[in-house]
Amino acid sequence: MTNNIQEYMQNMGVEARKASRLMASADTNVKNLALTHIAKAILREKTALLAANKLDLDAARANGLDDAMLDRLTITEKSINTMVEGLNQIASLADPIGEMTDFKYRPSGIQIGKMRVPLGVIGIIYEARPNVTVDAAGLCIKSGNAAILRGGSEAIHCNQALAKLVHEGLAAAGLPTSAVQVVKTTDRAAVGELITMKQYVDVIVPRGGKGLIERISNDARIPVIKHLDGNCHVYVDDDADFDKALRILENSKTQRLGTCNTAESLLVARSVAKEMLPKLADMLISHGVEIRGCAETLALVPQAKAATEEDYYTEYLAAIISCKVVDGLDEAIAHINQHSSQHTEVIVTENYTKARRFLREVDSSSVIVNASTRFADGFEYGLGAEIGISTDKLHARGPVGLDGLTSLKYVVLGDGHVRA
Amino acid sequence: MTNNIQEYMQNMGVEARKASRLMASADTNVKNLALTHIAKAILREKTALLAANKLDLDAARANGLDDAMLDRLTITEKSINTMVEGLNQIASLADPIGEMTDFKYRPSGIQIGKMRVPLGVIGIIYEARPNVTVDAAGLCIKSGNAAILRGGSEAIHCNQALAKLVHEGLAAAGLPTSAVQVVKTTDRAAVGELITMKQYVDVIVPRGGKGLIERISNDARIPVIKHLDGNCHVYVDDDADFDKALRILENSKTQRLGTCNTAESLLVARSVAKEMLPKLADMLISHGVEIRGCAETLALVPQAKAATEEDYYTEYLAAIISCKVVDGLDEAIAHINQHSSQHTEVIVTENYTKARRFLREVDSSSVIVNASTRFADGFEYGLGAEIGISTDKLHARGPVGLDGLTSLKYVVLGDGHVRA
Repeated sequence: MTNNIQEYMQNMGVEARKASRLMASADTNVKNLALTHIAKAILREKTALLAANKLDLDAARANGLDDAMLDRLTITEKSINTMVEGLNQIASLADPIGEMTDFKYRPSGIQIGKMRVPLGVIGIIYEARPNVTVDAAGLCIKSGNAAILRGGSEAIHCNQALAKLVHEGLAAAGLPTSAVQVVKTTDRAAVGELITMKQYVDVIVPRGGKGLIERISNDARIPVIKHLDGNCHVYVDDDADFDKALRILENSKTQRLGTCNTAESLLVARSVAKEMLPKLADMLISHGVEIRGCAETLALVPQAKAATEEDYYTEYLAAIISCKVVDGLDEAIAHINQHSSQHTEVIVTENYTKARRFLREVDSSSVIVNASTRFADGFEYGLGAEIGISTDKLHARGPVGLDGLTSLKYVVLGDGHVRA
Repeated sequence: MTNNIQEYMQNMGVEARKASRLMASADTNVKNLALTHIAKAILREKTALLAANKLDLDAARANGLDDAMLDRLTITEKSINTMVEGLNQIASLADPIGEMTDFKYRPSGIQIGKMRVPLGVIGIIYEARPNVTVDAAGLCIKSGNAAILRGGSEAIHCNQALAKLVHEGLAAAGLPTSAVQVVKTTDRAAVGELITMKQYVDVIVPRGGKGLIERISNDARIPVIKHLDGNCHVYVDDDADFDKALRILENSKTQRLGTCNTAESLLVARSVAKEMLPKLADMLISHGVEIRGCAETLALVPQAKAATEEDYYTEYLAAIISCKVVDGLDEAIAHINQHSSQHTEVIVTENYTKARRFLREVDSSSVIVNASTRFADGFEYGLGAEIGISTDKLHARGPVGLDGLTSLKYVVLGDGHVRA
């Protein structure tokens, strides 16, 4: 069986590599045609997609999957419309491939610049959410890459139904359907093969729980674009406007509890803690959020529980927030750089100099002044969709859209020039 | 002993991480002061450096190191001047750190852009060449990173003498001397430790022979920026200008035999092979270059030997070139994408459409029209110096200068904005 899986995946790799060469030189309008065709096909097949999703949901319930998993697995008319909107948005974005920039003459007489090119073959491994199939396909097509998608076994019906529509769109545009292949087996050996077949796959993007991502990062022999967790901070500075702080904290923590850009830790400057923290806490408590705080927090917020050092490192993905009263900006920056997962951090302040220092000195993929952590997202940043969020620094950092799936090569133009 | 090495390296890691925070927010003029001070110190200590180098060379000869190694190990007045020039050039480049770009308002009201930031701590592992110590230190300082340098044991005297001058420059500018640490032990266990201490090192740049780089890539648990080899091609198209072809091939192959941007393979379009190939071959032979060719080459060049398929994959780093007569552009591109190491490829042509296709379709880190492969170099490209050349696609491709040692984080500016 494992031998068969290996052969199956290797064949997929060969086909993907071949397709990637064609995708790399595909015209912009051809790629856009594929995208808009897929969008139309998804709208047309809405009922069938919901039916396929129901099969997955029934099986998931029978297998006793938890509510959070069922929630991620569910597609609705609304989420189908969001997929379609994403595809159309990607189609409307400028084609990054072939873009040439920074051409300059050098003293030697050569002219040197850069050209944006696809990475090649992208392997994407994800759990539950079927929309990833469409988002990832859309981003890979537009960026001239080939993709091998391996969704969770719990979403197999919906993913295969979506794969068919992706292939329909590729074929309608005259592109190879092997440009987006969706792994049909639910055998876990397929993942092991995908993340080690160096000769066919250029980068792996795992999406899902921390366990999945850690396992893949450790076992992969191919570069991985990943984020492990989102321990995001909101720092309410001495010079914070209270109304903004309240609004931003409420949105950052309570709009959705289970996303990676949800705030998990609140820092409040000592000089305003007495005035602001009780009110901020009341708001959180009214949303059912448990507060785990330092000694000063406990003194100001009787309902709070004591936080351990471990709490300050924790991404709860639940109605819990850690809280600490800090001396001011310096301690806030030091605390964040020590404890955060380098995902997204917010300062609430009216002070120009402190805002500027926070932006420069906080070492996270998104640094924000006076806005919600929840904005850290490919859609919100205007990337069209995101293939994931990277908390690594190499290659791509933060929400990864089209550009994150490309690279730059050097172009040199001469007229018989040789090096002296 | 190994325990001591581990402790020694871990301590270095702790110090480097601390220094990297200070380097990340160092002012531009402070970093430039360090660079120009190091440049002056190197000029001042020229005699001492040559003496230290002589100790290394004497030991190397006693140990029976080969001529190529001795050549790489040798510093001269001229190469010292080149180091100094490199430092001054890096000082004169714009500071990439803190650069903010692409700020745009989104429909939500937030304003989003990007800020360039250092990677953190760079680990550099290299053989023989002492100039790497200075180039790497210069690039890391300017890009706001900390560096841990591990040079070859054969260059230990010269590297330590250079390290002292780097520290002098850092101290003179008020920067931590631990921003650039040079490993003092020649124990190989130090390398094993350096490439696995994830918590202290953000990226590894190995420089040296293919064996070293392969070993490090396989064992590293930290991302590696690397190039394995440079199997560079010169394609002489049907529409090539002969004089340019002759000049470019001569420079690409014979200017220096042992560099990664030296041409290792010649492709000639069939329609011009009869006219041009014998003359191109005469030029190569007059430089003592052995030609290993296909059947058609052998028919046109009696002195040529038969090439095996293996030859077309080989980086000789010697007075040998592989040669193949091809049908035209399509076969040339296919041959290159199959056999090259994705380093640097040249087309010699007067034809606009074919030049444009070659640039787009050849999947190498540098693609060149009508100029020598030898231009693929950080200095020549205006990067000031290079930390290495990357034949990977992720993060950095081609010569890696300052930008390759940085990353981009997202910056969001709001005024109490929350996500709807």
